[in-house]
Amino acid sequence: MAIKNVCVIGLGTMGMGAAKSCIKAGLNTYGADISDKALEVLKEAGAVKVAKNAAEFADELEAVQVLVVNAAQANTVLFGANEDGVAYKLKAGTPVMVSCTMGAADAKAIDEKLAALGLPMLDAPVSGGGVKANAGAMTVMASGKPETFEVLKPMLDAISGNGGKVYNVGVEAGLGATVKIVHQLLAGVHIAVAAEAMAMAAKAGIPLDTMYDVVTHAAGNSWMFENRMAHVLKGDYTPLSAVDIFVKDLGLVTETAKALHFPIPLASTAYSMFTNASNAGYGREDDSAVIKTFAGITLPEKQ
Amino acid sequence: MAIKNVCVIGLGTMGMGAAKSCIKAGLNTYGADISDKALEVLKEAGAVKVAKNAAEFADELEAVQVLVVNAAQANTVLFGANEDGVAYKLKAGTPVMVSCTMGAADAKAIDEKLAALGLPMLDAPVSGGGVKANAGAMTVMASGKPETFEVLKPMLDAISGNGGKVYNVGVEAGLGATVKIVHQLLAGVHIAVAAEAMAMAAKAGIPLDTMYDVVTHAAGNSWMFENRMAHVLKGDYTPLSAVDIFVKDLGLVTETAKALHFPIPLASTAYSMFTNASNAGYGREDDSAVIKTFAGITLPEKQ
Repeated sequence: MAIKNVCVIGLGTMGMGAAKSCIKAGLNTYGADISDKALEVLKEAGAVKVAKNAAEFADELEAVQVLVVNAAQANTVLFGANEDGVAYKLKAGTPVMVSCTMGAADAKAIDEKLAALGLPMLDAPVSGGGVKANAGAMTVMASGKPETFEVLKPMLDAISGNGGKVYNVGVEAGLGATVKIVHQLLAGVHIAVAAEAMAMAAKAGIPLDTMYDVVTHAAGNSWMFENRMAHVLKGDYTPLSAVDIFVKDLGLVTETAKALHFPIPLASTAYSMFTNASNAGYGREDDSAVIKTFAGITLPEKQ
Repeated sequence: MAIKNVCVIGLGTMGMGAAKSCIKAGLNTYGADISDKALEVLKEAGAVKVAKNAAEFADELEAVQVLVVNAAQANTVLFGANEDGVAYKLKAGTPVMVSCTMGAADAKAIDEKLAALGLPMLDAPVSGGGVKANAGAMTVMASGKPETFEVLKPMLDAISGNGGKVYNVGVEAGLGATVKIVHQLLAGVHIAVAAEAMAMAAKAGIPLDTMYDVVTHAAGNSWMFENRMAHVLKGDYTPLSAVDIFVKDLGLVTETAKALHFPIPLASTAYSMFTNASNAGYGREDDSAVIKTFAGITLPEKQ
């Protein structure tokens, strides 16, 4: 029988969007977060039950998605400090979709701990941002057993069926995490090189709006160049995604590459650039603020 | 009075396309190249006159576009070894559009030599590839005096008016060259990081076609990733644009950055990657062959 009682743990931008999409899809939706505010918002949106610790209603659940920030938080909500995490209370066989961005080694370790409790895991990082999460149009890059995909289908349909996509990247835990990591490698380097190119154009005295126009109509374009350099042109570094997110994500790229014994010359350089930007005080600004570490240039001011 | 007699010097893929576009636009088109074959092709396409050295009919010309490979060749066709280049034979005031990819210093030096002969220059690199050149849909990134743009308008319309675009990036010679250089910085790094990411995915055991599918539908995409990694998936390294082109272009990026006294951490790394690929014997393969320098992975074979 198809699952009906689903829970999203971690109700930030992505998690709240996922939970609301589950409600819209007609699933009995539960939610957990440490923020009272977030719990209240989800309750008003139609959640069945909300709690700070999903262990409270774990025996009612048929599927769980963990959408906290990183592996450490995932470990905390799942296993807790004294075996008080939700994983110890779930019925055996309940599938757990772990959707935070983390290294492959962390994904494998969580998979093993869940397996020991009889809980199948989908290693299922997501992307798309808050707007797509709200629309039920997430992209999910997942690895796991075919039957785990099958059982989770109603929840996967709810969060991605409205224009998103679910990629099955293999059986082993860690593969889903790695696909996201490789994607973040590209995203991070593309932002850093966009900054490098625009900074060089500024130094050369090229009008930046013209440079932007040329690149976005030519083969040198990237999704990130087009999106992030628009912030630089406006001089607006309000964080949509912050510099420190890429310090974290390129850190995970580095860890994963180390575990794979593999060189990443460009990503290593981009990691240094974002780390330097963070140390310069731009950690909480938009990730395009990495351009501010290039000295000797004048950038557009906010109007 | 609008110019009518125009000449394209350098009838390779881009130059031949430009010359044919001028013929299609109803201009009296002249052509010059060291290849008899190229001259024959253009004559049959309707050129008024063709020659190995455009100096032969220079007194008939009202505009010239130089579309040879680099600054050294541009200097040769314009100035020759013993003042036998076309520049010495052009009527004073004849505009010269120099469209090869070169460093800003080279563009400025050519501008000065042309100015000394009373010839205004448009520093006007182009992009778009052979198909767009043939269609009269080139992108032109040009700097020069407003009146030089004005006089050259019929020729600019012919080569870019059919879906391309002419960018006016300023007055000074060197700015057009630099815009192209900054564009090539992005293009080169995007190819190199696409290779790095796909190589890491291969090492991790992720199916490369799935990785490609994820990236091309997400924020980590770039024009180059989408275009070049398709070659890697097919195992087809037939050169559309070769590794050695990016050794050259990222070399120009490096020279320009040095002249600007500006750091280019990512482009410097990408330059090393392409140079290493060239030394490994892949110089004449498709530029995506830079992925072959990553050891310890298995890449798709050509079917």
